[in-house]
Amino acid sequence: MAGLKKQVFVGTFISSKSPKELDYQHDTIVCVDGEGRIVKVDTEGGSTEQIGKRLRETLNWELSDVDVHIAKPGQFFFPGFVGECYSPRFPRKTLTETPDSHVHASQYPNVGIFGKTTLLDWLEKYTFPLESSLKDLSKAKRVYGSCVRRTLSHGTTTAAYYATIDVAATNLLADLCLEIGQRALVGRVCMDNPDMCPSYYRDESVEEGLEKTKQTIRHVQKIDPEFKLVSPVLTPRFAPTCSSDSMKGLAKIQKELDLPVQTHVSENEGEVELVAKLFPESESYTQLYDDCGLLTARTILAHAIHLTEAEAKLIAQRGSKISHCPCSNSSLTSGSARVRWLWDKGITVGLGTDMSGGYSPSILEAARQAALVSRHVAMGMDEEKERSKLTVEEVLYLATRGGAEVVGLADRIGGFEEGMEWDAQLIGLGSVDENGLAEDDGNVNVFGWETWEEKIAKWLFNGDDRNVKRVWVRGRTVHVR
Amino acid sequence: MAGLKKQVFVGTFISSKSPKELDYQHDTIVCVDGEGRIVKVDTEGGSTEQIGKRLRETLNWELSDVDVHIAKPGQFFFPGFVGECYSPRFPRKTLTETPDSHVHASQYPNVGIFGKTTLLDWLEKYTFPLESSLKDLSKAKRVYGSCVRRTLSHGTTTAAYYATIDVAATNLLADLCLEIGQRALVGRVCMDNPDMCPSYYRDESVEEGLEKTKQTIRHVQKIDPEFKLVSPVLTPRFAPTCSSDSMKGLAKIQKELDLPVQTHVSENEGEVELVAKLFPESESYTQLYDDCGLLTARTILAHAIHLTEAEAKLIAQRGSKISHCPCSNSSLTSGSARVRWLWDKGITVGLGTDMSGGYSPSILEAARQAALVSRHVAMGMDEEKERSKLTVEEVLYLATRGGAEVVGLADRIGGFEEGMEWDAQLIGLGSVDENGLAEDDGNVNVFGWETWEEKIAKWLFNGDDRNVKRVWVRGRTVHVR
Repeated sequence: MAGLKKQVFVGTFISSKSPKELDYQHDTIVCVDGEGRIVKVDTEGGSTEQIGKRLRETLNWELSDVDVHIAKPGQFFFPGFVGECYSPRFPRKTLTETPDSHVHASQYPNVGIFGKTTLLDWLEKYTFPLESSLKDLSKAKRVYGSCVRRTLSHGTTTAAYYATIDVAATNLLADLCLEIGQRALVGRVCMDNPDMCPSYYRDESVEEGLEKTKQTIRHVQKIDPEFKLVSPVLTPRFAPTCSSDSMKGLAKIQKELDLPVQTHVSENEGEVELVAKLFPESESYTQLYDDCGLLTARTILAHAIHLTEAEAKLIAQRGSKISHCPCSNSSLTSGSARVRWLWDKGITVGLGTDMSGGYSPSILEAARQAALVSRHVAMGMDEEKERSKLTVEEVLYLATRGGAEVVGLADRIGGFEEGMEWDAQLIGLGSVDENGLAEDDGNVNVFGWETWEEKIAKWLFNGDDRNVKRVWVRGRTVHVR
Repeated sequence: MAGLKKQVFVGTFISSKSPKELDYQHDTIVCVDGEGRIVKVDTEGGSTEQIGKRLRETLNWELSDVDVHIAKPGQFFFPGFVGECYSPRFPRKTLTETPDSHVHASQYPNVGIFGKTTLLDWLEKYTFPLESSLKDLSKAKRVYGSCVRRTLSHGTTTAAYYATIDVAATNLLADLCLEIGQRALVGRVCMDNPDMCPSYYRDESVEEGLEKTKQTIRHVQKIDPEFKLVSPVLTPRFAPTCSSDSMKGLAKIQKELDLPVQTHVSENEGEVELVAKLFPESESYTQLYDDCGLLTARTILAHAIHLTEAEAKLIAQRGSKISHCPCSNSSLTSGSARVRWLWDKGITVGLGTDMSGGYSPSILEAARQAALVSRHVAMGMDEEKERSKLTVEEVLYLATRGGAEVVGLADRIGGFEEGMEWDAQLIGLGSVDENGLAEDDGNVNVFGWETWEEKIAKWLFNGDDRNVKRVWVRGRTVHVR
């Protein structure tokens, strides 16, 4: 990672100032050092000579020593997307899953496949067999390599991954993230409840599960000792597949090593009932995680659709974060998570693709779907209808700073402030000539009369990986189109 | 159109057998004559020599005289999509619009732009000014050219377009469809209610509106006398913008010339209340159209979300069709149309993008959103939950045969039977190599172990225009990637 050439980025930079507002900085220069850190944001503009002079005076940099990236007219730099991207969950209803602030990397081949399966069916028919098969490392390499490259091509610079229960395949995913250059939380999936997991795909005992998890932690510590790019994440699949001893064991590791945790909560009503039945001693699904010591400020809870007021209050108190996975929730008929309601409670929210529960590898698609799902929430309300809807600005906040807060990296990624790391994407939109012919291959057509706000809305709603011209993580170019 | 070379298509053909079932025909040969008509579907396979012999015997064709198109392994032929694609409606709530079995071609530049506008706001701020500006024919050429090419690139071989009130610009849209080669219903928008339409953008009187409409009809009759490709469609924007005299006048033209009609009904609750207020003498919104003589078997009603039982019954009795626009309905918080419920009443349903109320120009996206919206319908139900959901097969039916029925062309397009016309798209999906590198640029990754049903599901959920390798309308190649 070290030893990158110094870089200077020139052009328009757009990022979230707050959930309500995007910041548009034109004619701006962002300087990134050899460690991928933003060391200067210069908005003074001017001639090359003037810029060179300022670089020399403030950073002691010579323009001739740096790589200069100039955005073309109409292009802009945007923070890389941050997303949770899981591995198989239990309560599947009718579609399948894909990756990011909740990505099940192992399920990537199944995106779009779900048929008419429900709940247990889905896991048994599609998910467990696929996950289990990834103990074949050549297959894992193919699936994970494809998943990491694909999410990067969509501008996802940071992903929280659920791998599988297999140690070697989980370690391979961490290796691939480091090699290809995606910032990632990589978790070995823990699942040891023999009543809920198939005999061919589960941890044999609490001890075995914890030991295997430690093996993956040690591996990641070895390949990236300072967690510069890749971090382990404790990953109890979700309560129904885990014994309380195993969850408590993971909580103990969490406290010792101060690691992040990821799991699912309250995705669908059947699951909530099941948890109540399996763990009658806990007052609620959320309370169960708290009783096991897993509801920490570093915990990422996916879905959180059917929470009670008491559960939301508890999550807010503990400072746990929520990964909203709208694509998955609509596809599987899980329900519509109430982002405004969660925000009102003071809870931090990010986005997840939840492949293959969600069908798309794109966090931009997740942001789009978050806008749509918020409107379905509004349809069901008598009051606060308008307020429930999420704006373009708000869903792009979820996709960047929100996600960064969820994965505990808000001080390093999600914006373009000095001191942050250069995790960014260069976005280009296509323009239309006098005959209506588009210059660009993507689906965003710019006619020339749009304001910047309108261009951003067009990008959100019709943009895809074709608009992502280049992606950087910690200053390193990791994708070029 | 006539005088095309004879063509033979070889490979896998997938089309809807019924809403419940897709038909997979492998190793099949489809023969298309110089008029773009399917004259033979041959499933016997065999060597080139054997095929040549059969062509000679049954059609008296020599293989050397025909253009042969062979689908590569993994590719397949699928019927072109049919969609309603409007022009601006009244009850906009929070997003914008795009085109197909309900496309407002004139609003194409506004896709994705809607901000936080509601209802009248949206029309006043975004829609009317843009539509009005298209009386500048150079601008209209740019907007319509882009819209027709863009929808074709997504496999939309037939679109029902709302243009604007301007005669010359509407005629230009018809000209462009004919020239570029998209099958289309092209409608001049009628709107003459001075209380609901801005002074700069409305028909001055009932007479003027009807006369202008006749001018566009005459133009289309001149450029395509037999309506081989382009047909006029009577287009009262929707009840609030129309006087009852103008609607009755259009109904009179409809009867005289047996033309199709398109309009909007029951898109949002505010609109329903408004119609009740404006037309107190009619029992319901639907009844109003019937009272004016516009509820015919050739009438296409967009949206139809908040229909009562009585209204649905009336629509079924009259044989009017419905264009379901899920993207638009979610974006604008209009509500969730109940497709299963409409089908249960015996009503024919197709899909519309409703650009720019819907943000996407793609009918495949509309099909995907139809699946998602049906799940939101299911979430709100206590019983019939499972039944409300639409399957992959059902939404692809809506996108092809359903749409063909809606636009009155079910005998000519939507499938691959002998006697039908060759409106088709060649679909290719990307495969993934041993290192997880995708061979194709699109978002559908095929690993090789998928069944055909699974490949179709992957295409539905992650496919886009990149998977559309070639598009034909009436045998003519109209798009190549």
